Order: sequence, then C-alpha cells, then structure tokens
Amino acid sequence: MDALPKRPANYVPLSPVGFLPRASAVYGDRTSVVYGRLRFTWTRTYERCRRLAASLLSLGVRKNDVVSVIAPNVPALYEMHFAVPMAAAVLNTINTRLDARSVAAILKHSQAGVLFVDYEYVRLARDALLIVADAGVPTPLLAVIDDIDMPTGVRLGELQYEELVSNGDPAAELPSLVDEWDAVALNYTSGTTSAPKGVVYSHRGAYLNTLGQLLSWGVGAEPVFLWTLPMFHCNGWTLTWGMAARGGVNVCIRQNRAADVYRAISDYGITHMCCAPVVFNILMDGEARQLAAPVHVLTGGAPPTAALLDRVERIGFRVTHSYGLTEATGPALACEWRHQWDLMPLPERSRLKARQGASVLSLADANVLDSNTMASVPRDGKSLGEIVLRGSSIMKGYLDNPAANEEAFKGGWFMTGDVGVVHSDGYIEIKDRSKDVIISGGENICSKEVEEVLLQHHAVADAAVVAMPHPHWGETPCAFLVAGNKAAVLCKDEVVAFCRKRMSRFMVPREVVLVDALPTNALGKVEKVKLRDAARNLVPSKL
Amino acid sequence: MDALPKRPANYVPLSPVGFLPRASAVYGDRTSVVYGRLRFTWTRTYERCRRLAASLLSLGVRKNDVVSVIAPNVPALYEMHFAVPMAAAVLNTINTRLDARSVAAILKHSQAGVLFVDYEYVRLARDALLIVADAGVPTPLLAVIDDIDMPTGVRLGELQYEELVSNGDPAAELPSLVDEWDAVALNYTSGTTSAPKGVVYSHRGAYLNTLGQLLSWGVGAEPVFLWTLPMFHCNGWTLTWGMAARGGVNVCIRQNRAADVYRAISDYGITHMCCAPVVFNILMDGEARQLAAPVHVLTGGAPPTAALLDRVERIGFRVTHSYGLTEATGPALACEWRHQWDLMPLPERSRLKARQGASVLSLADANVLDSNTMASVPRDGKSLGEIVLRGSSIMKGYLDNPAANEEAFKGGWFMTGDVGVVHSDGYIEIKDRSKDVIISGGENICSKEVEEVLLQHHAVADAAVVAMPHPHWGETPCAFLVAGNKAAVLCKDEVVAFCRKRMSRFMVPREVVLVDALPTNALGKVEKVKLRDAARNLVPSKL
Repeated sequence: MDALPKRPANYVPLSPVGFLPRASAVYGDRTSVVYGRLRFTWTRTYERCRRLAASLLSLGVRKNDVVSVIAPNVPALYEMHFAVPMAAAVLNTINTRLDARSVAAILKHSQAGVLFVDYEYVRLARDALLIVADAGVPTPLLAVIDDIDMPTGVRLGELQYEELVSNGDPAAELPSLVDEWDAVALNYTSGTTSAPKGVVYSHRGAYLNTLGQLLSWGVGAEPVFLWTLPMFHCNGWTLTWGMAARGGVNVCIRQNRAADVYRAISDYGITHMCCAPVVFNILMDGEARQLAAPVHVLTGGAPPTAALLDRVERIGFRVTHSYGLTEATGPALACEWRHQWDLMPLPERSRLKARQGASVLSLADANVLDSNTMASVPRDGKSLGEIVLRGSSIMKGYLDNPAANEEAFKGGWFMTGDVGVVHSDGYIEIKDRSKDVIISGGENICSKEVEEVLLQHHAVADAAVVAMPHPHWGETPCAFLVAGNKAAVLCKDEVVAFCRKRMSRFMVPREVVLVDALPTNALGKVEKVKLRDAARNLVPSKL
Repeated sequence: MDALPKRPANYVPLSPVGFLPRASAVYGDRTSVVYGRLRFTWTRTYERCRRLAASLLSLGVRKNDVVSVIAPNVPALYEMHFAVPMAAAVLNTINTRLDARSVAAILKHSQAGVLFVDYEYVRLARDALLIVADAGVPTPLLAVIDDIDMPTGVRLGELQYEELVSNGDPAAELPSLVDEWDAVALNYTSGTTSAPKGVVYSHRGAYLNTLGQLLSWGVGAEPVFLWTLPMFHCNGWTLTWGMAARGGVNVCIRQNRAADVYRAISDYGITHMCCAPVVFNILMDGEARQLAAPVHVLTGGAPPTAALLDRVERIGFRVTHSYGLTEATGPALACEWRHQWDLMPLPERSRLKARQGASVLSLADANVLDSNTMASVPRDGKSLGEIVLRGSSIMKGYLDNPAANEEAFKGGWFMTGDVGVVHSDGYIEIKDRSKDVIISGGENICSKEVEEVLLQHHAVADAAVVAMPHPHWGETPCAFLVAGNKAAVLCKDEVVAFCRKRMSRFMVPREVVLVDALPTNALGKVEKVKLRDAARNLVPSKL
C-alpha cells in the first residue's frame, strides 16, 4: 500500500487558484463579475488574470513577494485574488479604513513589492509611502486601479491596473505551484503596534476553507453573490475563491449604501451576501423593502439580536450566523440550522441562532477547553472555557512574529482567546470575547493598540479601553484614563483629537472616562469585566 | 513565508474518518443509521465504530492490513467504513454478485487478514476460503455479520460482528493518522484474471472526493439518504463518509425491491439516493408511485434515456447524471444543471442531461485528448479523444500491479480509456466507452475476462465479447466465437453452462454467436465496433 508513489496525476497541490481555470473551462460563458456597466465572463476573467500575472512577473515580482492592495469591492480586487498567486506572489489586501500610519506599518512589515490602490485611496497610499520612505525602507511600486467612473485622461500613478492587464501576455508561462503549503495571502489583524500581526494563509488552507464555507453555508449551484462583505476581510471569507468554484456571479459595489444594495438585489437577482450586522442596520434604516425572492446572508462579528433577526427575516433575508477570525481563514463555526427549529417561536429561534455553532468541515476539530486543566468543558451550556480550533484551514502562522505564534499555538490547538460554552447539542456559544478585541461595524479593534497610543499622551498615566455597546456599530471603544500629572489638564476632546491623529478613525474612542484608578485584581491585572459593565451604562454621546 | 512550520494545530492529515467524531460532537443526537427496527444516533455510531476498531486491534489487525467484507447495504458495512481505518487498516468491500472464484482471487491478492460476511453470504465466503486454502495461501479470519432478521441462536462463524462491537473497549487508544497519503480503502475492478486490479484510495483522496461529491451534487443540510447504491461500489461513491460529513440519515435496505424503496421513501422522507439506471427500471415496472416530495437521485453508469428521464421526473425524482470510475473514487464528472435549461422541451433537456458534464471540485482537471497528439480536442462536440483526469481524488494506484499502473498513468494524466467529446460549453460527453467494459445493471464487466474464460473452452479457437443493448440491464455481454476444432461441436447452451461454472453470474454472456472469423483491421486487431453493431441487431433471447 505504501509503495504506491505520488504522481502528477494523483497528487495535485491544493490551491483555490485552480478554481479559476476550471470555471473558465466549464462556466466559461457565464457571468463572473458585474460592476456598474462592466460585465465579464469566466473565460474573460481567467484571461485578464493570466495577463495581470504575466505583467507582475515582468515587473520583477517573484515567489513569496508580497503584492498589496487598497481597494473597495471592485473587479480589480477580485481578479487580484487569482492573478497575484498565479505569479507565485502573496496577496496582501489592506483594510481601506486604516490610516496612513497603519498602512505604512503593513507595507514596512510585509516588505511589499507592489502596492495597488483604488483611485479613491491614492492620497492614503501616497501618505503611507511617505512614511515608509521616511523610515528609510524601500517603497513598493505604486499601481493605480483605474475605474469606469474615474474621469478619463487622469493619470494618478506610474502604473495603471488596466494597462497592466492589457499589456500582459495571456500566453506567458506562469509558475506552477509545487507545494500546497506555500503562502497565498497575508492579512493583517493589527498594524499600528510595534509587532504587527500578519496572518499567512497557505494554498492548502485557503482551498480547504473555500470548500468548507460553501458546504457549511450550503451555497448551491449558480449563486449570484453581492459583495457587501469587504474582500479585504479574510479574502471575503474565502468566497472570492468560492464564487469561482461555484461559477457564481460576483456583483461588485463600491459602498454598502442601502439604495445600492436593494437595487443590486432586484437588478441582478442576488441569492447570497455576507455582512456584519451593521450592514443590516444600514438596510433597515428607513428604506427597508420587501425582497422579491429570499436572499441568504451569512453574518458574523456579532450575533444578530432577536429584534434585528425578526425584522430582516420578515422582509426576506435568510440569516446564517457564523463565527470566525482571520487566523482561521474566516468563518470557523457556523450555526447550522435544523429544520425542527423552524416551528419554534421567534425568541427561541433567535436564541438558537445567536449561538456560533458547529465547526466548518475544513476544520478537524473545535473545542472549548478549561484554561486550567486544558480539558474539554462539560457540554452544559454553562461551563466557561477558551474556544480552540485545529485543522488545515488554520493559518500557517503570523509573519515574522515568533512571540505571537508562541502564544497562539498551544497543546496542538489554535487558541482563539474567546471564551465560550458548549451546549448539550454540541453547538458552541461565545460568552465573552477575547478581552482585547472590540468589534465596531464589523471591524476588529485591538484595545491594546488604542491603549498604547493613549499612553503616549503626556497627561495620561494609565489607560484601559473596552467595548461599549452601540446601537448602530454594535460596539465602539470606550477609554478609561487615569491622569498622571496633576498639573496637566486631561481634556476629553483633546484626547480624542490626539487619537484621531494617531490611529484609524474607526479605532478612536467615542467615549473617554476619567477615573482615579483602574480596578485591578489581586494580581494587579486590570479587571476589564468591571470596566465593560461601567461602559454598558454609559449612553453614547455622539450619536 | 516559507519559514512558518507545519504544526499539529494547522496541518491535520485529511481523512474522511474524521467526519465521524465531528458528527458525534455536533449531530450527536440525530439519527445516523436506520435499518428495519434498528436506529442509531451519530453518538452511538461513533461509539460502535470505536469499539469495533478496538476489537480489530485485539485480533491483531495492524497498519495497512486489509479487512474485507461481503455484505449488502446493512449498518455493519456502513460502520466498517470508519471502524476499519480507525484501526489503521484498509477496507476492502467485495461485490456480493461475485462468485467464489472471484472472491477468492481478491482475498488472495489483497492478503486480507479478516473477512467479514453478511449471514446471507456465508456459503459464498466459505467456498471462497476453500479455494484460498487449496492454493496454499493463509486464509483470513472469518467474522459473520449477524442481522436483526437472522434466526436467533444461530452461530455461523467463530467471530460475530455484534460481539466484536460489544466486546471492544470504547476507550481504547486508537492509532492516529500521520500521513494522509496512507491507504483507506481497496476496491477491486476485476478479480478473475491473473492480474487483479485492486484500486487503492488514500485518506486524502477519499476526504477530498467526499467534499467534492457533496458540492457537485449539492447535498444540503440534513439529507435523508436511501442506500440503493451498493456501498461496495467505490464506497458508495464516497457518500458513506459524506453522510457523516453532513450528519445525514443513512436508511439501509438489503435489496432494491420496488416496494421496499417506495416504502422507505415515504416512511423516512428520503431526500437523496444514488443508483444505476437499472434501479429506475425496477421502480418503473408496474408499481410506479407519485412521490410526496422530490427525491434527488444521482445516477451513473449509463446516461438516462429521454423516455426514462421523462417517466421518473414526472413522478418526482430529480435526476443528476454523473460519470465516474473506481479509479477516480467514484463520480469524476457531473452534469451540473443550469436553471436556464429548465424551460427547454424534454428531448432537449434530456440531451443536455445525458452529457457527463463538468469535473467535480476535488479534481484539478478533466480533459479530452487526441490520442495521437495528446493535445486537447477542439470544443466542438464532435472531435473524439480519450477522457483523462488529474487531481488528488484519483487513486494511489493499483495494488501490486505495475503494468496496470504504467498503462493508467500517462503524461501527468489518469487515462480513463473512455472516448468522448467536449461541447462548446465545456461539458464532456462520452461517445464510446472503453472497449473492454460492459455495464450491466450498474456492474462493470471486463470483456477481456470473459474472453479469457471462453478461450479455455476446448472447442473455442477465438472469442470476442462486446456489449449488447438490453431493455432492463442496459447492456449484457454478447460473445462472438470461432470454433477451433471441426470435430468438437460448439453448442451455445453448453458454452453458457461452461461460463456459469467459471464466472460471476452477471458476467455470463446472454447471447452467443458463432462466426467463421472475427473481423480484424489491417493491424490484425479485432474490430469490436463492428461486433457491437452486429450485437445491436440481435434480440435478447432470454428476456
């Protein structure tokens, strides 16, 4: 049995990039991407990606080089999910909501060779490149993604996306993947601190997670997918590659405005979309419309509340709740629905759906472990423990960050840092998220990063940042500060202005509370639970 | 990027066996297996499999040992798909329609250590073991699968399946899989000739094909699956493992009698089943009933005819046509349906559905190559070439058969031996099956094997066996014989009786034609195309 060798015919490295040539072969005449008046077929998308990959090689891009991109959900960002790894390079999608300082930190840490930027974000990119240059670090080549809505004749950079596509040789020989453990993507979970955490995905992990997502969510044939989830979030929860696997239609929109979303749903017959609950808030504000046909929505970041669930399901959305994190290549758990629950009253249905659920099929295991004994907690829905994951869709690790890897991988598990329970039916529910993370409008904010900035303020002696509930954004950061110098005046507005200059806008605390001292436990650790309770009682002041 | 190591948390060997512990964890209280008055949950199935694996280890079964089984679709056969590899052994399911000689050939070639046999097939097993012993080869241990319908108090063998399950220690430590390239199953495509072809599946290939099948066929949540397809055919096209992945219900029946099938469909609310077209013939004979809810059927072996498709779809079956072979771990192509075809008239729909279609997602590529140039044929629906496959769900190879491996793997492809075309939409259609294969009632018959037996007849000088169309079985073997000795009388009935003694019943030619000489081409090769044309004009004599 063991003597049978691996052969080119029966051992092909797993890669999500392979879904594209297959889509071109068997879904070739179907629509791949729609964006305004632009419309491509799968054959065309494959050809465009081959051309772009050839151009990247001509620019000198080599294996494991990082190619970064700052863009909203436009066709170029979609195509780069294939074209960049087709040149053996690693795709680094950057959150458009970051400030120049954070973008610069990512460019420096990743040593990106090329930076693609959507025309709307050219200033952000330029500012980031200045910071990189100031630090004496070589700057990446800048390539501007032109757009159908861009004024013609405008030239914003040396390299233009469409020129790279059209100048690329579609017949050029592209490097073939030899090792499925090779990197395909690099996604940063934080970038402003001294030790950025760049999450590296392997081709193998991305391939497996793509199949796992399609199965867990139950994406059938011929999906019409609306890109409300930013593709820069875990490569669109791997559904960038998933739509090629399914031969689906990718409907691209630049922004999640309610009118645009509803128009796309009715114009294109959207069947599927993903989003954080904040998008539901946008869709429900004022102009909620009854959908002509059900739209399946995979939501994550925070469990949908019963009230929200009731409202969105009433107008025709079919919500699946999932839980994931960048390190798990997106959704790791999904609340797989059971038919028998259909008949339950809404509050009960909502309670069941608010649970994070069962592991996706690409994971080998998900568990909740007692932090002291590292044994599984009882399946009683009460015993708390840390949610841990194991499987080939877990990241290769953090790039150049041994300390973070040491902390993340323990005892054969990936430690999520989130606290949860296991119910008697085996479904996992989060009870307390990682102390460090605040999720605002679907964006993860690392409280430690905000605290580090606050501590740079001359009048701040101590700082703790926790999540404060917010009706629109879900959560916003709330800062508790201890003044250090009796002489210096600690002014809330001044602190906020101080933060604005030093971090991405969505990270800035919406509420600042001055306290005499932070509550600490016997070991001297800040008791964030008490601060979160305090924050819960504060009314957001800037609604 | 390359420096990040594989860790136990992020590089878990792929194996379909892992779907069972997951099913026990997240679908634990759901029904796993139904058989008559027997009903198990996923938790129970997992426990039973752990117990059986522990018993196999106690019997001395070790890594790569072959554990064979002869059984219809009963729970034991289902459980063995997990329990055997959980003991690091290799599962060898044997076709119940084989004769003792063929079974013996498989047992000898595979060097099986244990043979499980359903109570109904004990005589077949005993006869086979006698042949093995006569050849001086060590015989496997015999374990009888007792059954709820078996007379109580009857003891048919030394070892009893249920005793092995109940005596096994569910807490025993089982070997853990280290290399996903390890063998999980061994399936014979032919066993009577001197060089049996035992197809070896890796854990990796079986895992990937399982996900691929679920996606290609679109098996959603909570399927209720009726086992009309024998599990011994490519491990039930990997749906044995697939039902665990989905937490589905496995409804087991011993035989595909129309009444049993219709009763199961209505009693259990069957949603999915697989079968060869011959099962449709059984279901349509006389007592066709209107189904209360649609039942999705994956069919393969032969394309459903327009007339059959019309009849079965009219009563509520939703047919997906697929193409596969043992070497590809079951279905390799599936005719993925497009919504736009729904509105076409039946003959056109049927023509489209009769095509074998697009590669499953676990394959890297499927193609049709010109046999001379080894280049892709044009996508014109006319140019003939050999269908070739490539991907990680292709078998590891044939066990101890270097010549067959040499022939099967060429130029980075697995050669199917089937001749087809590619249509302009990329869908593949078979035009001429491998010259050697006759498919009768879903069973593959190797014409060469039948010819070899015929040539052993003292009065036969030359023999060629081809497929003859048959209204019920699809095809049956038709033998063209040249008498060698003018003195000896070549009698048709005597030839048939001669065959009956020497091969499995379904392989015996239903028609024997005496000819003066076989038609040959310029190179002296028998022109089977001409013989098939001749056979097509013969009316089956034994309907």
